[in-house]
Amino acid sequence: MNKERLQELLNQIAEGKVTPEEALNRIQILPYEDLGFARIDHHRGIRDIFPEVIFCPGKSPVQVAILVERMSLAGSNVLATRADVEVYGAVSSRVPEAEFHPAARMVTVVKNRPVWCGTVAVITAGTSDISVAEEAAVSLEIMGAEVRRIYDVGVAGLHRLLDKIDDMNQAQVLVVVAGMEGALASVVGGLTARPVIAVPTSIGYGANFGGLSALLSMLNTCAPGVGVVNIDNGYGAAALAFAILKSSNNE
Amino acid sequence: MNKERLQELLNQIAEGKVTPEEALNRIQILPYEDLGFARIDHHRGIRDIFPEVIFCPGKSPVQVAILVERMSLAGSNVLATRADVEVYGAVSSRVPEAEFHPAARMVTVVKNRPVWCGTVAVITAGTSDISVAEEAAVSLEIMGAEVRRIYDVGVAGLHRLLDKIDDMNQAQVLVVVAGMEGALASVVGGLTARPVIAVPTSIGYGANFGGLSALLSMLNTCAPGVGVVNIDNGYGAAALAFAILKSSNNE
Amino acid sequence: MNKERLQELLNQIAEGKVTPEEALNRIQILPYEDLGFARIDHHRGIRDIFPEVIFCPGKSPVQVAILVERMSLAGSNVLATRADVEVYGAVSSRVPEAEFHPAARMVTVVKNRPVWCGTVAVITAGTSDISVAEEAAVSLEIMGAEVRRIYDVGVAGLHRLLDKIDDMNQAQVLVVVAGMEGALASVVGGLTARPVIAVPTSIGYGANFGGLSALLSMLNTCAPGVGVVNIDNGYGAAALAFAILKSSNNE
Amino acid sequence: MNKERLQELLNQIAEGKVTPEEALNRIQILPYEDLGFARIDHHRGIRDIFPEVIFCPGKSPVQVAILVERMSLAGSNVLATRADVEVYGAVSSRVPEAEFHPAARMVTVVKNRPVWCGTVAVITAGTSDISVAEEAAVSLEIMGAEVRRIYDVGVAGLHRLLDKIDDMNQAQVLVVVAGMEGALASVVGGLTARPVIAVPTSIGYGANFGGLSALLSMLNTCAPGVGVVNIDNGYGAAALAFAILKSSNNE
Amino acid sequence: MNKERLQELLNQIAEGKVTPEEALNRIQILPYEDLGFARIDHHRGIRDIFPEVIFCPGKSPVQVAILVERMSLAGSNVLATRADVEVYGAVSSRVPEAEFHPAARMVTVVKNRPVWCGTVAVITAGTSDISVAEEAAVSLEIMGAEVRRIYDVGVAGLHRLLDKIDDMNQAQVLVVVAGMEGALASVVGGLTARPVIAVPTSIGYGANFGGLSALLSMLNTCAPGVGVVNIDNGYGAAALAFAILKSSNNE
Amino acid sequence: MNKERLQELLNQIAEGKVTPEEALNRIQILPYEDLGFARIDHHRGIRDIFPEVIFCPGKSPVQVAILVERMSLAGSNVLATRADVEVYGAVSSRVPEAEFHPAARMVTVVKNRPVWCGTVAVITAGTSDISVAEEAAVSLEIMGAEVRRIYDVGVAGLHRLLDKIDDMNQAQVLVVVAGMEGALASVVGGLTARPVIAVPTSIGYGANFGGLSALLSMLNTCAPGVGVVNIDNGYGAAALAFAILKSSNNE
Amino acid sequence: MNKERLQELLNQIAEGKVTPEEALNRIQILPYEDLGFARIDHHRGIRDIFPEVIFCPGKSPVQVAILVERMSLAGSNVLATRADVEVYGAVSSRVPEAEFHPAARMVTVVKNRPVWCGTVAVITAGTSDISVAEEAAVSLEIMGAEVRRIYDVGVAGLHRLLDKIDDMNQAQVLVVVAGMEGALASVVGGLTARPVIAVPTSIGYGANFGGLSALLSMLNTCAPGVGVVNIDNGYGAAALAFAILKSSNNE
Amino acid sequence: MNKERLQELLNQIAEGKVTPEEALNRIQILPYEDLGFARIDHHRGIRDIFPEVIFCPGKSPVQVAILVERMSLAGSNVLATRADVEVYGAVSSRVPEAEFHPAARMVTVVKNRPVWCGTVAVITAGTSDISVAEEAAVSLEIMGAEVRRIYDVGVAGLHRLLDKIDDMNQAQVLVVVAGMEGALASVVGGLTARPVIAVPTSIGYGANFGGLSALLSMLNTCAPGVGVVNIDNGYGAAALAFAILKSSNNE
Repeated sequence: MNKERLQELLNQIAEGKVTPEEALNRIQILPYEDLGFARIDHHRGIRDIFPEVIFCPGKSPVQVAILVERMSLAGSNVLATRADVEVYGAVSSRVPEAEFHPAARMVTVVKNRPVWCGTVAVITAGTSDISVAEEAAVSLEIMGAEVRRIYDVGVAGLHRLLDKIDDMNQAQVLVVVAGMEGALASVVGGLTARPVIAVPTSIGYGANFGGLSALLSMLNTCAPGVGVVNIDNGYGAAALAFAILKSSNNE
Repeated sequence: MNKERLQELLNQIAEGKVTPEEALNRIQILPYEDLGFARIDHHRGIRDIFPEVIFCPGKSPVQVAILVERMSLAGSNVLATRADVEVYGAVSSRVPEAEFHPAARMVTVVKNRPVWCGTVAVITAGTSDISVAEEAAVSLEIMGAEVRRIYDVGVAGLHRLLDKIDDMNQAQVLVVVAGMEGALASVVGGLTARPVIAVPTSIGYGANFGGLSALLSMLNTCAPGVGVVNIDNGYGAAALAFAILKSSNNE
Repeated sequence: MNKERLQELLNQIAEGKVTPEEALNRIQILPYEDLGFARIDHHRGIRDIFPEVIFCPGKSPVQVAILVERMSLAGSNVLATRADVEVYGAVSSRVPEAEFHPAARMVTVVKNRPVWCGTVAVITAGTSDISVAEEAAVSLEIMGAEVRRIYDVGVAGLHRLLDKIDDMNQAQVLVVVAGMEGALASVVGGLTARPVIAVPTSIGYGANFGGLSALLSMLNTCAPGVGVVNIDNGYGAAALAFAILKSSNNE
Repeated sequence: MNKERLQELLNQIAEGKVTPEEALNRIQILPYEDLGFARIDHHRGIRDIFPEVIFCPGKSPVQVAILVERMSLAGSNVLATRADVEVYGAVSSRVPEAEFHPAARMVTVVKNRPVWCGTVAVITAGTSDISVAEEAAVSLEIMGAEVRRIYDVGVAGLHRLLDKIDDMNQAQVLVVVAGMEGALASVVGGLTARPVIAVPTSIGYGANFGGLSALLSMLNTCAPGVGVVNIDNGYGAAALAFAILKSSNNE
Repeated sequence: MNKERLQELLNQIAEGKVTPEEALNRIQILPYEDLGFARIDHHRGIRDIFPEVIFCPGKSPVQVAILVERMSLAGSNVLATRADVEVYGAVSSRVPEAEFHPAARMVTVVKNRPVWCGTVAVITAGTSDISVAEEAAVSLEIMGAEVRRIYDVGVAGLHRLLDKIDDMNQAQVLVVVAGMEGALASVVGGLTARPVIAVPTSIGYGANFGGLSALLSMLNTCAPGVGVVNIDNGYGAAALAFAILKSSNNE
Repeated sequence: MNKERLQELLNQIAEGKVTPEEALNRIQILPYEDLGFARIDHHRGIRDIFPEVIFCPGKSPVQVAILVERMSLAGSNVLATRADVEVYGAVSSRVPEAEFHPAARMVTVVKNRPVWCGTVAVITAGTSDISVAEEAAVSLEIMGAEVRRIYDVGVAGLHRLLDKIDDMNQAQVLVVVAGMEGALASVVGGLTARPVIAVPTSIGYGANFGGLSALLSMLNTCAPGVGVVNIDNGYGAAALAFAILKSSNNE
Repeated sequence: MNKERLQELLNQIAEGKVTPEEALNRIQILPYEDLGFARIDHHRGIRDIFPEVIFCPGKSPVQVAILVERMSLAGSNVLATRADVEVYGAVSSRVPEAEFHPAARMVTVVKNRPVWCGTVAVITAGTSDISVAEEAAVSLEIMGAEVRRIYDVGVAGLHRLLDKIDDMNQAQVLVVVAGMEGALASVVGGLTARPVIAVPTSIGYGANFGGLSALLSMLNTCAPGVGVVNIDNGYGAAALAFAILKSSNNE
Repeated sequence: MNKERLQELLNQIAEGKVTPEEALNRIQILPYEDLGFARIDHHRGIRDIFPEVIFCPGKSPVQVAILVERMSLAGSNVLATRADVEVYGAVSSRVPEAEFHPAARMVTVVKNRPVWCGTVAVITAGTSDISVAEEAAVSLEIMGAEVRRIYDVGVAGLHRLLDKIDDMNQAQVLVVVAGMEGALASVVGGLTARPVIAVPTSIGYGANFGGLSALLSMLNTCAPGVGVVNIDNGYGAAALAFAILKSSNNE
């Protein structure tokens, strides 16, 4: 509720068209809009298709199931990340339409068919990075993005990557998932003009330090147009990619 | 050069329409395109408006000046980052149209008026972050973006920030520049559905550890839709924001 | 025992009012007080209500049970932190009035009803932080503080937090418990003039580094009036909050 | 403006007692209070005596001088931290009543005599920690606290510290400033029931790592009732101590 | 396919000796060679004897078995590192000739007897380092290197090491595997003119930090001629040693 | 074998008193002594009483048992550190006189009654540090030192420590074992003129970082006369204390 | 003053042999000794020869000069560490007998000729470590130790070190000063049974990280009998070596 | 001097062909060879052409000059690294034939023309890495290697690198010098079968952490055949490359 609409509402009280109680209700129930907090409207606007997200670690399967049930009853699409088959069992007993995505370690509930909002390429350096990549890919699909999976094109075998450049450039956003030294983000960043979202993974050993190596690589990339999310944060990459697609559509 | 074009070229040799030497030349001289490396075309496509960038530290003023001169003679817009007045002096003696932006510590040369490609809000937590923010803002302007500067709206005085939400949401991309604990990125990320590019700065003291505090904060943000670039990397944020805008325009 | 009282005691010996043996006893039995170590008195003064604390990890259930028994026999209120149901079983077989607080992972024994000493708001960013928050809350309650629990008001949904500002300001001390990027401490610190005790938690993933991210955020906060305790140290926050309340009461 | 006051205002419009324009003004001009953001009132309430603070590094002497002038013209007490004599020169030419505190590296302007709000002991381990301690002490004095300076009582000469326990306990809050291994915070914390604010300093060498050693020590203290602020952050300690004193006074 | 060969092929089309389709096939199937990427040839040249490598962690025994089967069917020698007896079981049911090396935690399949390419000494500081050393040794043997195992010659008993110097110098490359403080690499480096490949291990405790101590030691060695691979990366050391041997043979 | 003795030997060959073969043997068989490596003799001299040490982690119980058997057959006293009851079972079946020390997690075999060589005080901050302290204490006893155990005298209850100062000063060396903030080493170092060996332990939580906090504290101690060994390295402290005692005895 | 002596004193008051005032004085003036804090006596006992130490960084030359003057007037030997020629100038104008040791960066004043208390070998890996080694050596000489300097015997040239073993073993304590990878401490520790005090230095470059590399090496040494002091802390090594010598002499 | 030669020498004494004094001299002057320490011979063998190296930081220009003079008088080739023009001035006044290499920051003296021993490609990612690369290149040239400089072929512009693959493969060893994210080492490692020596540089900013980013990248490389030396250690890379070349030549 911006200034104009507030002015109008107050006028309507003065004119007797709206009772003070009714006006209070409209101001009070959505209090922040009354001050013109357009983000709420906007947020809500996108929430119809944006899934609610539950991070499972630290929650019991039953707790996750209750949350999924409540959210899906409210009409939201739901994503539960880092879920295992036990969580899925608990969820599906309450929300039978829930689906399990083992590679992505996710449980999803789709209440509203998302509208197509663009194409994202999800690219991995190795096969071990696929779990994180699938978290991004499944999240993006439930948000409404088309996903092109381009897996196992790490820089140690550069020709595999070069063969896929056309595919990459047909997406509007590239999500690059890589562990070890994370060099793939820089190489992809140098090969494309598209925005690149780099996801370091904790894949590796020795002085990988739980993903620190790939994280620092990606932050220090010599290629322009690369943004980094947290280690192993496939969902985070999806959320940023989705925000970019929506912004492109002027939503 | 994709399969079809290569087939055609070979047919033309067989048909005597193209000599082997000429064919060799077309395959050999631009070898990467010949294999369909569309990125090259694409890259070139955007390079008309994308500035060449020079990172000044470690280069003498004269070296910077020569680079700027060569690039501007080649018709590129040029950005020199982390430049001081001494660098500007050396550059302007060779490239008189060069401009100096003291707050951004940049020297720029504009050879081609960039075409408008969208709006970016550049937001800072404090006044000390403005130098990095200006590096982003000036870079974006030379790339063709309209920039809304929203400075000094850190979370310690939340009402200053809340007043600016509408302004923020009118941009397609938000660049959030913050040092110390870097909380602004999370708060802005929670208030908007736009993609947020977070730039940690080395502003702060004590256990700030040269920007590590803000960097970790931003990577661990609880808000969706946030990508992080390197500490103090204003230019990097601009390049990513620009890639998002261009991607939105399907360029 | 300060200089004046010691002078007086020595005079009394000289005057024959006190035998040397009796004087020796008074100096010797509480030797540090004899030198004016008022802290002992003071400490004792508050100990009547301050619980004895046992950190369970690294101790066997039986060891914990013996400690609890000995302390409660001595008339102290007892807190055992990081306790599980097995520890509780061992304790309750020896101290039947012991209570188990599963969310706080604590076992408590209340021998003396604590006197009311003030109000503390315990605030969490997310639901995963509640375990640490409950350690603080239960500790505070056994010390005599009234606790207002304000949970799941993280900065990604700022309106939830803004709705609770009045509640917060009615407490004398605020304990803010947050993992991930820990931004809640700064935002709360900016919204209140009360002392804020920030408790980073190890909740998060990726480059959270076991709570380091939230810890650095809180130490580097741009908001005034914030003190930080160790990662996941709910009890530590309670002890500091209690010291503040007692100090306010001039005890 | 809470629900009742908003209801009343809307009723007054309906009754014609207040014009819609006037109502809009009252809702719009002070928007946050209208939603009951009591913090604003509260904040303002304490601001009369709470100094405005300027962190000098990264600002030119002239910039600092302008900020000091503007703030003092607005009637605020002003603190400029990390100031040197050059900054003082620039400030005093605009604000002649400004004072320089070389040991604290601060410039202050007192426009309103602060009211007494309590006593704080500021304690250092060594003489090299005094600069940080003075930043805390001078800040506290301008806020209205009485300060007891107890300097150079590090744990390597424990008897010096033990002699001062009475002095410490007469303060309501203790600020302990220590570098190197920072053990003083734990020892003082064990000797008092008062809240202890620990300030690690960057004093030391070798594996001190710029204060990290003292910081970790203080965070891991085995003594209860200790909160930690950032390395070398004397002002931060003062702000927290002041918040505690104010909270005690139920302000 | 270098320039000369491409010229010749194109000439053959012109001369009608090769059809365009056939030429397309030869250019297309091995596209990179057509541009003279000699590395492919070279790579292939060495691949006849260079084993394919599978890093087992994060893959199920069945997945590993399928990979081993596919690779060995393709005629490659295969190394699976970090394998346990369960992995071996799965592999041997599909590839009966697979061998298990428990000390090295490896499964190998030899399809082509490697040709002798030189001698490598694999040296360990302690017995706990042998597992990593065996990963290097078994890898080297399948590549065609002769391996001299010199184990448990750490610097705390220097005479054991000095007795082995002749043995060491008869190898062309030395692989030094050491945990704890990793001093052996420096001492060996000082005793030989051979290239030394240092492998830090995660053996140790306390401030060993998972091998960081040995890693930093080896990187900071005062001895010339030492290169370092990742912590516990026995295979990596073998691959580098093998590259050195091959390079010596001008292959 | 120093210059004089070598000269003499060569003269004896020239004089025919020693055959070349015999001389070769004397130079060759004990090569290090021939060059005057007195350390070998010296080392041997102390080895009669110095135990052989086996670090159990990473070795199977049977492997440990074989090592213990071999060493004890050779007449050495043997220490196996970080041993559990399973290791003890395996050892005792081969070496029945082996003893198990559960608190120290050690298995010992005493073949030679050690001669008394001095007194060491082993001091802990808390009860959780006792396991590491016992590793030091049991090791020292088998080496021949008398051990005074002074446990649970952490700095949070300073009077407990002050009561023990006399006890401490009657030892020639003090071993201080402390986790958390490790302040005890500094306080003890300030109270005594004896050499202090500080052992940081990994006891603690939060930002303890596996003992890093105590380690840095001890390295940065403001007290003179403190040397630090690795985290949790009780045996290492014992070995250093023993070396000091032996050196005092001019052995 | 232990229990017996206190009893006697109180009896003397009762008997009129001592006035209360006199008794008060004896208890009050040296309060800690009265309770039997023998450390004070002991400390004082050694202080006659133990120098007072001033750490110069962070103090002005005049401040250092005043401290040196006051301490030397009190009859103490004085050490000022990290002093430069400017400090020396200020000191010598007040204390003409002060001496400057440029290699050690120290100023010393000898008021009491120290009594010989033993021999310490100070050993360096390289020439760049000599400054730290001299800080140890000069400190030890003023304390009364004889110092054998054995410089530049790093492990990259092992024969230089082996030639010096006899020299080393004639000292009672070895101080090993090394930067880079710090391997010398382990090698020396393996060659001697003497207590070894390891001093990591910040000498090196790259991933030396200001001495962290050598520090971790020394803490993780595989050799027994090694204690570590802080990076570059030559004085700290001297103080520990001196404590060992004194302890050996049963002082 | 191996066993056979020692036997022969002793026989010659017995036969009177060699006097004991002469034999002593031969054994004594080169004492380690007498015991068969072949490394000495070998070392010496290569020393004829291997330069003596002086690391200038921490040494005065005069000290460096004296060292260079002494070494060159002894007939060695000399390398002084991290030298500036002031150092060169001091050196050239004593050793006029000394040469200065500003880009490499080195001073060299060539006394013996080195014999050709192979080819090394020195490759950099950016122009800022050239200083470190030149340290490697100039060192290699004085050792006798032919150097191919391939500069500024970072992965952000991959086609520049792909054009140089043939050049790279004509070298026997590749030295890859890269800062920022250091991805070049992985990409080159994937493109070649030659041994790759990776040199991380401290070039970069933000979370580069003085070269840590590139260092971790290179250690975690997914490409086989890569060894890493210390940050900015161009000389170290040269020494390893040279050892590889010499080993190839069976020297």
